[in-house]
Amino acid sequence: MNTSSFHFSGTSPTPCRIAILGFGTVGSAVARRLARNDLHALSLTHICDRRAETKQALWSDVVDPSRTVWTTSVDDVLTSDVDVIVETIGGVEPPAEWIRAALASGKSVVTANKQVIAIHGPSLVTLAERQGRQLRFEAAVGGAMPIVRAIGDGLAGDRITRIVAILNGTTNAVLSCMEARGCSLHDALADARARGFAESDPSADLDGDDAAAKLAILCALAFGLRVDPSQIDTRSSAGITAHDLARAHGHGGTIRQIAYAEYDRDTSTLTAWVAPIVVPGGSIFASATGAQNAALVTGEHSGETGIFGRGAGGDATAVAIISDLAAIARDRAAIVPAPVLTSDFVLQTSDFVLPTSDFTRPTSDFSLVEAV
Amino acid sequence: MNTSSFHFSGTSPTPCRIAILGFGTVGSAVARRLARNDLHALSLTHICDRRAETKQALWSDVVDPSRTVWTTSVDDVLTSDVDVIVETIGGVEPPAEWIRAALASGKSVVTANKQVIAIHGPSLVTLAERQGRQLRFEAAVGGAMPIVRAIGDGLAGDRITRIVAILNGTTNAVLSCMEARGCSLHDALADARARGFAESDPSADLDGDDAAAKLAILCALAFGLRVDPSQIDTRSSAGITAHDLARAHGHGGTIRQIAYAEYDRDTSTLTAWVAPIVVPGGSIFASATGAQNAALVTGEHSGETGIFGRGAGGDATAVAIISDLAAIARDRAAIVPAPVLTSDFVLQTSDFVLPTSDFTRPTSDFSLVEAV
Repeated sequence: MNTSSFHFSGTSPTPCRIAILGFGTVGSAVARRLARNDLHALSLTHICDRRAETKQALWSDVVDPSRTVWTTSVDDVLTSDVDVIVETIGGVEPPAEWIRAALASGKSVVTANKQVIAIHGPSLVTLAERQGRQLRFEAAVGGAMPIVRAIGDGLAGDRITRIVAILNGTTNAVLSCMEARGCSLHDALADARARGFAESDPSADLDGDDAAAKLAILCALAFGLRVDPSQIDTRSSAGITAHDLARAHGHGGTIRQIAYAEYDRDTSTLTAWVAPIVVPGGSIFASATGAQNAALVTGEHSGETGIFGRGAGGDATAVAIISDLAAIARDRAAIVPAPVLTSDFVLQTSDFVLPTSDFTRPTSDFSLVEAV
Repeated sequence: MNTSSFHFSGTSPTPCRIAILGFGTVGSAVARRLARNDLHALSLTHICDRRAETKQALWSDVVDPSRTVWTTSVDDVLTSDVDVIVETIGGVEPPAEWIRAALASGKSVVTANKQVIAIHGPSLVTLAERQGRQLRFEAAVGGAMPIVRAIGDGLAGDRITRIVAILNGTTNAVLSCMEARGCSLHDALADARARGFAESDPSADLDGDDAAAKLAILCALAFGLRVDPSQIDTRSSAGITAHDLARAHGHGGTIRQIAYAEYDRDTSTLTAWVAPIVVPGGSIFASATGAQNAALVTGEHSGETGIFGRGAGGDATAVAIISDLAAIARDRAAIVPAPVLTSDFVLQTSDFVLPTSDFTRPTSDFSLVEAV
């Protein structure tokens, strides 16, 4: 990838051949983008889905069947001449095994799969490096908000000490809907489902497991730590009531699901948790509504850097995936370095306390929502 | 550069040899970082400054003279075995010529020089590509705020339509100081100078020329347009008074120097300007105080993505430079693609009107400060 590139289109002499594994919300949004004629360097040649036949018929007006092969067999893709495999299936297995097989067969991989990267990221990146291929995962954290690049590249020249973030779009859509309407979590969830921001079972979102997996990835990028997402302490947002939000509003704030990580290099101590927190009204966290994500990253030399954007939805996630594809198309020969992660740190017991900062003053302090 | 890298330190088998051209505020901040023992992959071997002898004596406790050669001769650096030259001199010539010579002699270049990149960026990036070397310039726009990566890489998968940003730290420090203290621009400027945020002659900052150069770079990255910074219409902030700020405050807002660019691809029409604008109190622009920068980027598919952080100061700029050095050290063999820029567009006459957005509602509209 080259930040020094001024424009994406036309930088590749031969189109990069792309396969999509899993044709759901995200996979189909990527296909719709690739089918447009403005991305000459990227060519969608294969789609693998267990309901390939049905979907091929449904999507024939978008995906030209004369140019794209539909298949139910992952092996068809692995043995094909595609350059990059886009994995948008979700869940740890079989996707982790398929990504391993893709890299082993000499293909680069772009994935939106936070569970796979949180758990198997280091070994997969090492495999990618050995193979001289790339593994990219901007879409695994923050949707269209380019936080993987911001932390992994843009602030690589600093020593990051703290990350405070909203990383789950579904929970944010639910909490901000409750805030705006004064409605129950149940009603807000129905609204989020209607807008395509919530799964039929939203427990991984509300309980904090989804945000914990994303936070584990950010801990690896920012601190070089190998954190098992299940080690991250979580408090569920499922019990938040309209009364809790009214009370937070009375204190000039609102409630958001916050993912927090702070690393003390002197004592090798990591504090990491996900919980519903009362945040000040003027903060970037309160300003994040709907499926938006936001993050405040503190570095020793850069101070606070913030980033926010659309954290969920097929189109937003597709932007992150296409950006990763663009980076690979530009720079197919690049060698990916091996990760240097340590498990040698102390994970602190969570007290769910957030420090105030320049970006939150002069509003009220953060506090854990007690009613949970 | 590889976003898939989990940690920077130790990824390079042999240290990357680095020269600094120009040992002022930024150059010395980079040297101080490189002298710390946590960046094993980066080794400072040469410093070139016209006052090398004096500075070598002054900095002997930070820069080890047994490991770093001081010289007044650029040729000494060009003919040396350094891998990367960091250019922190400023001004178009001679830096542009020296960067050209550095690339021609097979070295990669990291620069903080917005004037050189705004004017000569495309041809220099083409030269870098031909040479199989890299030219990186994260530090040229936004200080520690990684907007070059956010726009050039993170949102490369979208079609960006609009950029609204604070890009000049000095002017922002002056205006936010006037806002906080109710003081005159003259007094605020003295304060900014005392904090190291203003040059002895701040006219390029206040008049908008500095922000226009940075905006031209962002237009190249976001829209693929070759924009001469002198074509960008500017209104000076030098005439803003305490009365103007009080009036803006009365309307629930404040005043910031805003850089604006919007590109209509259907008509190939660019609107681009820099001017003092009344911004709503709740916006990320009003929240940017001191030398902070902020940007709101609109994409067709990603909607609005925001980023903010320290926009000026040696330490913040050094973070951007070290991040670029890290990217080169990781990936020294990467080939940089040629820029594809067009001059075939219409530059619209400025009316200095900002649209409202999800991030600024429900506060008052933006408006040009009339008193200027």
